[in-house]
Amino acid sequence: MDSGRFTIAFLLFLLSLTTPTLSERLIRLPQRPPVYSDILRYRKTDESFCESWKYSIEANDAGVWYVVPEKCVKFVQNYMNGDRYRSDSEVIAEYALEYAKTVNVSGDGKDAWVFDIDETLLSNLPYYVNHGYGSEVFDEKSFDEWVDSAEAPALPASFRLYTELQQLGFKIFLLTGRSEFQRECTDKNLQFAGYTNYEKLFLRGDSDLGKLATLYKSEKRQELKDEGYRVRGSSGDQWSDLFGFATADRSFKLPNPLYYIP
Amino acid sequence: MDSGRFTIAFLLFLLSLTTPTLSERLIRLPQRPPVYSDILRYRKTDESFCESWKYSIEANDAGVWYVVPEKCVKFVQNYMNGDRYRSDSEVIAEYALEYAKTVNVSGDGKDAWVFDIDETLLSNLPYYVNHGYGSEVFDEKSFDEWVDSAEAPALPASFRLYTELQQLGFKIFLLTGRSEFQRECTDKNLQFAGYTNYEKLFLRGDSDLGKLATLYKSEKRQELKDEGYRVRGSSGDQWSDLFGFATADRSFKLPNPLYYIP
Repeated sequence: MDSGRFTIAFLLFLLSLTTPTLSERLIRLPQRPPVYSDILRYRKTDESFCESWKYSIEANDAGVWYVVPEKCVKFVQNYMNGDRYRSDSEVIAEYALEYAKTVNVSGDGKDAWVFDIDETLLSNLPYYVNHGYGSEVFDEKSFDEWVDSAEAPALPASFRLYTELQQLGFKIFLLTGRSEFQRECTDKNLQFAGYTNYEKLFLRGDSDLGKLATLYKSEKRQELKDEGYRVRGSSGDQWSDLFGFATADRSFKLPNPLYYIP
Repeated sequence: MDSGRFTIAFLLFLLSLTTPTLSERLIRLPQRPPVYSDILRYRKTDESFCESWKYSIEANDAGVWYVVPEKCVKFVQNYMNGDRYRSDSEVIAEYALEYAKTVNVSGDGKDAWVFDIDETLLSNLPYYVNHGYGSEVFDEKSFDEWVDSAEAPALPASFRLYTELQQLGFKIFLLTGRSEFQRECTDKNLQFAGYTNYEKLFLRGDSDLGKLATLYKSEKRQELKDEGYRVRGSSGDQWSDLFGFATADRSFKLPNPLYYIP
C-alpha cells in the first residue's frame, strides 16, 4: 500500500477538518477568533510566554493559528524590528549556503532550488507594521492593495542566498501561494527588489485555488521532479512550503511569527 | 509509483551519506569535529548568534550537528537551567493536551500516543551538567553508566501530559533509541520517575542497530498502525522522533539544544 502518500493525504484531510474557510488566493489566513484558552492563562510573564509561544509556532507545535496573541504583539514587534529576525534569517541563509556548497552541481542545469516569496524572498513587514503585526484578523482587500503596489523589499539574507546560489549554478524556482492574477505585480515587485533570472515563477492557477498550501506546493515540486530536476534545496517561512511530498533534499525554515498558512 | 515512500527512502539515503559512524545503540552522536566555519565567524555578539543557532537547530535548518559550539555553551547552560526550557516544555505540553482533548477517543482502546524517552519523558540534564552541556564529544561509556543508574528525573511538563493523556483514554507507547540490553534499567528509571501503565516500551532490537532513528521509529509506528492503532499524537525532542512515515496525526517537538540524532 502507498502508505507514505496515504499518510500525507490523511494528514491533509485531518487538517481540513480543523481549518475553516481559507482565504485561498492569499498568503494570509482565516477570519476566526483566537483559541489560546488554557495556554494563554497559566504563564506568569508575558516575555516568558511569548518566547515559548514563538518556539511553539516555529516548531509547528501550535498547529493552525490565526492571530498573534494580544499579549505578544509587542514581543513580535520587537522581534521583527530588532536584531533577532535579521540574525535568524542570516544564520539560516548561511546554513543553506554551506549545504549548497557541498552539492555537486551538475552541468546539465537540473539542480534546482525552490524559494517561497512572501516572508522568504520579499518582506511584507511594511504592511504588517500598519496592521498590528499579525494581531489583526486578515484583511484581504488591504493586503491585495499592498501586493499590487509591488513595493515589498527584499529580505537581505535571502537576497544574498539567492544570488550566491545562482553563482553556484542552481536553477531558481519561485513557488508562491499568490494567484495567477497577481503575476504582473509579483514579477514587478521581484524586479524592484533585485530578484532576476529565475527559471520559473509558479503561482496558484484556477485548479489550485481550493488546495491547502502543503498539497499545492508538493504538487509543483513533483512537477519539477517529473521534469528531471533535482530539488536540492528549498527555503520558506511556512512548514507548508517545505513539507508534504516531493520534498527537497534539504529544507530551510525561516522564522515568521506574523501568520500561519497550512 | 510509491513516491512518498521513495522520497523518504531517498532522504534517508542522502542523510546516510553525510552521517559518519553512528553510535547505534545510544541517544548521542558521533565523534567528529564541529564544522561551523563560516557560520561561526560572522556573527557579532555571542548572545545574538546563539539565539539564532538555537532557532536553526530547533527548526532543523542546521542539519546534522555534533557538539554545541563553544561560544554557546553558557547560553545552553542558561537555557536549560533557567526559566525558558521549563516554559517551552510547558507550553508545548499545553498545546498537545489542548489538541488531545479534541480527539474523539474511542472505546476500542486503539487511540495511541507515542512518547520518546530521553529529553522527552526523562531528563538527562544531571548528566549533561557534568559533561559540558553538549559541548563535549559524546562518551558512550559514561553515558551508559548514567543510563544504568536509572536516576534520570521526569521532565515535569511531559509527566503532566502523560498523566492527563491516560486519563483521557489514550494508550501510551514509549519508543526510544535505547537498546534492548537497557530495558531493565530503562524500565526501572521510568518507574522511579513515576511513569506507569504504559502499553509497551519499544527499544532497539538487534535488527534495528544499524538504522537511522527516523527509519527505526517510523517502522515501529507503522507496526502500531498495522495493529489497528490510530497514532493520534507523538512527542519527542528530535525531528527523527516525529518525521518519516507512519507519522502521528499531530507531532510535538520539544526543545533540545544538547544533542542531535538523525
